[in-house]
Amino acid sequence: MNNEKTIEWVKEGKYGYSLTIDQTLIPNEYKKIKIKDSTSMYNAIKTMIVRGAPAIGIAGAHGVCLAAIELKNESNFIEKLYEKIEYLNSSRPTAVNLSWALKAQKIVIEKYKDLSVDEIINKLIENAIRLENEDIEINKKIGDFGAVLVPKGAGILTHCNAGALATVGYGTALGVIRSVYKKDPTIMVYADETRPRQQGARLTTYELVRDGIPVTLITDGMCSYFMKKGMIQFVVTGADRIASNGDTANKIGTSTIAIAANYYNIPFYIAAPKSTIDMSIKSGEDIVIELRDENEVKIINDKPICSEGVKVINPSFDVTDNKLIKGIITEYGVFKPNELHKIFS
Amino acid sequence: MNNEKTIEWVKEGKYGYSLTIDQTLIPNEYKKIKIKDSTSMYNAIKTMIVRGAPAIGIAGAHGVCLAAIELKNESNFIEKLYEKIEYLNSSRPTAVNLSWALKAQKIVIEKYKDLSVDEIINKLIENAIRLENEDIEINKKIGDFGAVLVPKGAGILTHCNAGALATVGYGTALGVIRSVYKKDPTIMVYADETRPRQQGARLTTYELVRDGIPVTLITDGMCSYFMKKGMIQFVVTGADRIASNGDTANKIGTSTIAIAANYYNIPFYIAAPKSTIDMSIKSGEDIVIELRDENEVKIINDKPICSEGVKVINPSFDVTDNKLIKGIITEYGVFKPNELHKIFS
Repeated sequence: MNNEKTIEWVKEGKYGYSLTIDQTLIPNEYKKIKIKDSTSMYNAIKTMIVRGAPAIGIAGAHGVCLAAIELKNESNFIEKLYEKIEYLNSSRPTAVNLSWALKAQKIVIEKYKDLSVDEIINKLIENAIRLENEDIEINKKIGDFGAVLVPKGAGILTHCNAGALATVGYGTALGVIRSVYKKDPTIMVYADETRPRQQGARLTTYELVRDGIPVTLITDGMCSYFMKKGMIQFVVTGADRIASNGDTANKIGTSTIAIAANYYNIPFYIAAPKSTIDMSIKSGEDIVIELRDENEVKIINDKPICSEGVKVINPSFDVTDNKLIKGIITEYGVFKPNELHKIFS
Repeated sequence: MNNEKTIEWVKEGKYGYSLTIDQTLIPNEYKKIKIKDSTSMYNAIKTMIVRGAPAIGIAGAHGVCLAAIELKNESNFIEKLYEKIEYLNSSRPTAVNLSWALKAQKIVIEKYKDLSVDEIINKLIENAIRLENEDIEINKKIGDFGAVLVPKGAGILTHCNAGALATVGYGTALGVIRSVYKKDPTIMVYADETRPRQQGARLTTYELVRDGIPVTLITDGMCSYFMKKGMIQFVVTGADRIASNGDTANKIGTSTIAIAANYYNIPFYIAAPKSTIDMSIKSGEDIVIELRDENEVKIINDKPICSEGVKVINPSFDVTDNKLIKGIITEYGVFKPNELHKIFS
């Protein structure tokens, strides 16, 4: 990818706005849109114009800035801003990065609540931009910690898109792949299509082709075939929420792949920043899994793939058991699922 | 399904022709096409107008009749007919039912080679019709042997389409489901989409909705989610070739599901006729896996799902290890993978 940020705050006029790539249009169109109010940000998250746990976090931080700008002349500014934060938090339930980033903005509000509204808004914008820049730095660290784990010339399977597009830049799972590729151009990435929303086919292959990193697109059921043939030596995905015991929610289909990797004794890793770890929950059982519209399954390229009247259940995420995860690659190093407390101590 | 045959020989004029449902059009259109020459039959198998291992077998038997009709005035009739049989056999490599049915026709040719060409043709047609009718009877037996294995009120996962459309009628895996449903209407079938060709979404849901059997469409990566939630108690699929040790080639994605079922201790069964068992090969390693066109992965509903220039590998089948298979449901009863020799003794 070029070095553009997937999502960034643009200073313009008194405060500015959020500028983000519309990911629903890729690969057909690469277009950035300006988001200038908190309701539009809520909708952008909900409809997956912005997606990917770390990018959703930044979108949330921007959403607080936009809400604050909207509310600046309200008498009970702080109270109404908190209401808007709750509203933004309800846009998607599974990725913890959203509530993490909203919490980071709440800390700013608490700290500076005695300043003028104008000053508070500027502090929120400053903090959002800091989070953006930190995200890229964190991902480069994740990439470098992960790169040393990958055998030379490996086939690397990834699921969904945990790339530059899922973050501000560089990516988590694809950050690992980018860092590996710099020292070993003989790798081959296997990108799962990732039905229903096809983020693997649409976004991951787009990113990797643009960077010249070798990539083969496969369908979600094919992993066992390629693993059995000895074509995959390493599996790495991102995460949307990691429980304190290491159980990991990620895009639907991830746990299926982790089970297959385990069966074939292929190491399965999660790449995610500290902000994706939710130490407040014991296990994956406590993670709320978002159920999305059935048309995501039934319709592709504007046409139905099945008869009318077919029932569909469309969970957007699944939970991979900690015992299937060889390690969690973070900006603080690589940890076993039962070692996550070390990052917080 | 209504009681129409998916594929049948229609007597008309002196010999007749093959009439088959064009399965590439379902669910948008239900249309039967007449196949009147062996080249059209070769193409119908190759392009999956006819698909499903048992249905492909019957298509092959019909193909021999059509070839014999075409060649009836040739001086070296038998020799040229054998060449056409080899040609038909090359249309798709993985399903053993094709070569099994061609062999059944060769036995007819050998037996009656001293009769007139006209009489040989009629014997081939008679034999093809016998195989059609046998197929339905076999599937009903498979259904009844399988039905007793399914717990009451089970969620039953199936992959691809091993239904009436994959056979002459009733189906193998869906035959089991039809037989279960007759005594227990509280079951729920989970039908995998089955990318790339989407036979689960297009064909299995079509068949089951028509029969009023409850069905939920899910994507291929979702099986682990539903298994973990305790919504699936039984998994059954068809087969394209079963090695003598029980290793089973079936539609790509099957082995991924079998591994997941095994992880969650859910019984995984294969439903297939004796004609799908290839005792001439030791294990799954000897099964040739067909690689199909990459556009099957890259294009859905006439539009690309990924950037141009993305590499694709598109294996049409995978091999499920015998140790993952709880039983193979045949017309002779249910056998463990290591007991298949009993059917042939």
